[in-house]
Amino acid sequence: MKQVLFQHGTLALLVPGLLAGTMSIGELLQHGDTGIGTGAGLDGELIILEGNAYQINGQGQVRQVPADFTVPFADVHQAAYQDVTTLAQLSQTQTYQRLEQLVKAPNTFYSVKINGSFQMMHTRAAVKSTPPYKTLVATAQQQQEFTAHNVTGTLLSYYSPQLFHGAAVAGFHSHFLAADHSMGGHVLDFVLTKGQVQVQVFDTFEQHLPIADHDFMQHDFSHDNIGADITTAE
Amino acid sequence: MKQVLFQHGTLALLVPGLLAGTMSIGELLQHGDTGIGTGAGLDGELIILEGNAYQINGQGQVRQVPADFTVPFADVHQAAYQDVTTLAQLSQTQTYQRLEQLVKAPNTFYSVKINGSFQMMHTRAAVKSTPPYKTLVATAQQQQEFTAHNVTGTLLSYYSPQLFHGAAVAGFHSHFLAADHSMGGHVLDFVLTKGQVQVQVFDTFEQHLPIADHDFMQHDFSHDNIGADITTAE
Repeated sequence: MKQVLFQHGTLALLVPGLLAGTMSIGELLQHGDTGIGTGAGLDGELIILEGNAYQINGQGQVRQVPADFTVPFADVHQAAYQDVTTLAQLSQTQTYQRLEQLVKAPNTFYSVKINGSFQMMHTRAAVKSTPPYKTLVATAQQQQEFTAHNVTGTLLSYYSPQLFHGAAVAGFHSHFLAADHSMGGHVLDFVLTKGQVQVQVFDTFEQHLPIADHDFMQHDFSHDNIGADITTAE
Repeated sequence: MKQVLFQHGTLALLVPGLLAGTMSIGELLQHGDTGIGTGAGLDGELIILEGNAYQINGQGQVRQVPADFTVPFADVHQAAYQDVTTLAQLSQTQTYQRLEQLVKAPNTFYSVKINGSFQMMHTRAAVKSTPPYKTLVATAQQQQEFTAHNVTGTLLSYYSPQLFHGAAVAGFHSHFLAADHSMGGHVLDFVLTKGQVQVQVFDTFEQHLPIADHDFMQHDFSHDNIGADITTAE
């Protein structure tokens, strides 16, 4: 069976500030029940679990977003995870190293979901900006950071191969949602107390581009520093 | 309606010589009736028209390939072209410039099909190599070149945005098949006498990766000069 990671937009379009919402959550959910993304104008961080899309906004508040909420960028897939192992007492760096060793698939896309408890969870959430949008790096500087201790929840991560840096962020890109919805966001760092690790490997990377968006279609990307700016901002 | 360009493999995998056939033509044709590609070991050039896959081999011979013929790389889509215009008396460079002005979609993928007559058509076909495969640049040096004058046929072209160089060749990538199957191949140059131009714009770029292929999955791409080598060889 085809295992598809669906992506609306490409990370590259965020770099010069093409932040308009070009797909609704309602349409996005037709491509999967699990995912991550951001709202128009980098309106917070999104995490989609079991068909429900949650936003962690720039004030750190968590809410479920309506079907007409729009996104400039999101990754979704239909969950069909395999239980892999239980990990405990690991830093973020150690966790990602162990995952790379376990999955052994550096050249394709995969998702990792860790349900567990975290001694420390450090996140950020972008703060919504309004048109005319600034660049990704400038907009990302408005982000707010949040830290929780001894929190349980779900870490949802996508691994992208180095070959695809630009379309996606190479390596792991993770969002978090606390089980009680008390915090979440784009993950900057964590210490895992103990968690159940699930993995789903994809063979297909489906990129949907916002071809009805005039600004995207006519933008000259030749002067944008795509790879380096994504590394800086993400 | 979703307009999908399906790609098996990524051009980057050809660079270090990952030339094994990892999808059959039979399976490929389930994703479209029109396309281009190459055989295992760079076994010639493929052009798929109206659901039939033709190979121009290293000796310049044209034949229809069987369903079990395998490819390391191919692009296919379901034809739904729009008639755009008639062009006449243009070099390759002039043709591509006119197409870019007509389509005005530099940041997404599209296909152009030109049925017409060509004062000159200059092609190449890769020559099949056997394992252990050499790099793309070394293998491509074995290519043979062919030139025809006053030939009628079909030029099938895919345009890829600069953002996606590496996954595909940025700009136009064209294959040709003479109406009488007397010649064809990967297009190096042409002079168009007169042709009917059809265009199909895609909003979705679906990349299928050969995750069952051990050599691909374990290859370390970090020392491969992906972008430059694709430009050299393609």
